[in-house]
Amino acid sequence: MERTRTVAEAGEAGIIAAIRSAAPSSLNGDDAAVLEATASNSRQVCTTDILVQDRHFSFDYSTPFEVGVKAVSQNFADIQAMGARPTALLLGIATPGDIALETITELARGINDAAMPWGAELVGGDVVKSKDLVLSLTALGELGGPAPALTLDGAGVGHRVIASGPIGYSAAGLDILQHFGSRRAVPQDDEILQELVSWHCAPRLAVGRGTTARAAGASSMTDNSDGLVTDLSAIAERSGVRIDLDRVAIAPDERLLHAAERTGIDPWKWVLTGGEDHTLIGTTDARLPSAYRPIGTVRSLDNEDVNAPFVTIDGVRPTYTSGWESL
Amino acid sequence: MERTRTVAEAGEAGIIAAIRSAAPSSLNGDDAAVLEATASNSRQVCTTDILVQDRHFSFDYSTPFEVGVKAVSQNFADIQAMGARPTALLLGIATPGDIALETITELARGINDAAMPWGAELVGGDVVKSKDLVLSLTALGELGGPAPALTLDGAGVGHRVIASGPIGYSAAGLDILQHFGSRRAVPQDDEILQELVSWHCAPRLAVGRGTTARAAGASSMTDNSDGLVTDLSAIAERSGVRIDLDRVAIAPDERLLHAAERTGIDPWKWVLTGGEDHTLIGTTDARLPSAYRPIGTVRSLDNEDVNAPFVTIDGVRPTYTSGWESL
Repeated sequence: MERTRTVAEAGEAGIIAAIRSAAPSSLNGDDAAVLEATASNSRQVCTTDILVQDRHFSFDYSTPFEVGVKAVSQNFADIQAMGARPTALLLGIATPGDIALETITELARGINDAAMPWGAELVGGDVVKSKDLVLSLTALGELGGPAPALTLDGAGVGHRVIASGPIGYSAAGLDILQHFGSRRAVPQDDEILQELVSWHCAPRLAVGRGTTARAAGASSMTDNSDGLVTDLSAIAERSGVRIDLDRVAIAPDERLLHAAERTGIDPWKWVLTGGEDHTLIGTTDARLPSAYRPIGTVRSLDNEDVNAPFVTIDGVRPTYTSGWESL
Repeated sequence: MERTRTVAEAGEAGIIAAIRSAAPSSLNGDDAAVLEATASNSRQVCTTDILVQDRHFSFDYSTPFEVGVKAVSQNFADIQAMGARPTALLLGIATPGDIALETITELARGINDAAMPWGAELVGGDVVKSKDLVLSLTALGELGGPAPALTLDGAGVGHRVIASGPIGYSAAGLDILQHFGSRRAVPQDDEILQELVSWHCAPRLAVGRGTTARAAGASSMTDNSDGLVTDLSAIAERSGVRIDLDRVAIAPDERLLHAAERTGIDPWKWVLTGGEDHTLIGTTDARLPSAYRPIGTVRSLDNEDVNAPFVTIDGVRPTYTSGWESL
């Protein structure tokens, strides 16, 4: 068997060649990438995330390909949460020299695979040496037409609270991995557990949900990255309102109930504090956008009480509220 | 005296607040930043760099403010090298918890200070915890009008080779720091040495040189980031030509000769392999763009000899050729 080549052995040029082969783009390869011209009334949208090995991802649980997919999903969710369409990615890698070149190649392949359904490409990047493996992914997007972006501050009293994908799956997947101790130990024949684990390791966004919500006239939007209560609190605080969730609408579904039974963990913890599903959540005063469901109502904030919660469930403060703190 | 607060003590929200205060932008603060609408025939340009402490910068030699300035200069040089105008920045920080919050604030202040002359702003970012201090800076820019970008592959035989700023100053500055052992030890009254050290720690780009060159019809462009020979070799290789530099035109100037005398180092090493000046270098078949000087001529490549040099000086292979390898 051929010995695995490391990034140090491949050198900067070798690594860049491997990444460009795994995630090809004709826009890559000069001092900077020049994107395609956009429609005359469009605006550019941009966001960036840093991921540190064994803090934001672990090769014990996820393949490098999955880490690439997840990195794209979390960035594209932020682009979508503005109502925009993702168009391009830039990748910065700080890597120890002894990492296998194949790890980087697989990472790039995952990035390419997750970007492709959007017609987006990896258009540039940078590779340097470091002690930790640190990934920096920047996503660009396009906001077409004169309608405003979907910001955090647009929720108004009486608007419906809406969501477009699973809530709590990623957190359930992580707890399943930790419960069984390794990915191999998760029962292979339990499709539900496997699905939740996949959702944690490589969440996949449905294409176009952000632009759909904007076209349908949604009033605010974010994505479920730090936990439902934390992320909706950001909308509520910025909009000066309270968000009241409908307990029945957000109740753990049969998949989460199954995982709860297998792990002994309260599934409401996943629903309320989970994060990393990157499901779009927001508010609307117009029609329900296609593929969204209502999960609550925007209420007025109790301005008399400085400790009044920004998010309630059927009018009551949630049991679990602590979301992810990245530092 | 008040004890210095660390980033761990400030927490994610505290760090972000400090950065936004040091580098304010009304575009910051949502899931992603929405840039201002651009002219209808403009294209977006993007580039990213990763900087690792004690590899790409050192607080032994540079202040955090200077590191911020330098990070912007190196990114904006890449935007300019396409003939584009820098418009926005995204900053990712992976930081140990025990770094002083003031270090991050000063870094952001440097970024803001360097971006301001361009009308560019820090519009977003991410902060996470790690072992190394790693900075990831992404720059966006705008390429106005239908003229092509200034790419690496546009040099043609007979074109003039041009440059717009100092070459070798940054490398001289680093050698001066290493020669004297610390920044304090560099003679305070030696203005030339101080200037070269500043050029290493916080190079400042003249605003608009990239768009000037594009408007004047330059045929190719890059910036002096990895060393003159290395960077011009990239143009020559991609264009299928040889670049012949004029020894007299690139000869060390009186500042470099002075530094050479003080350090005992051959100043040609700085000129030919230095890098990090981020001076724009390129080629033109049209008039000399304002503020550029001619430094050589594009010649035909000897295709018979696979080892033929891409860059020569008065027809001869350079003495020094090894540039910076980031891995």
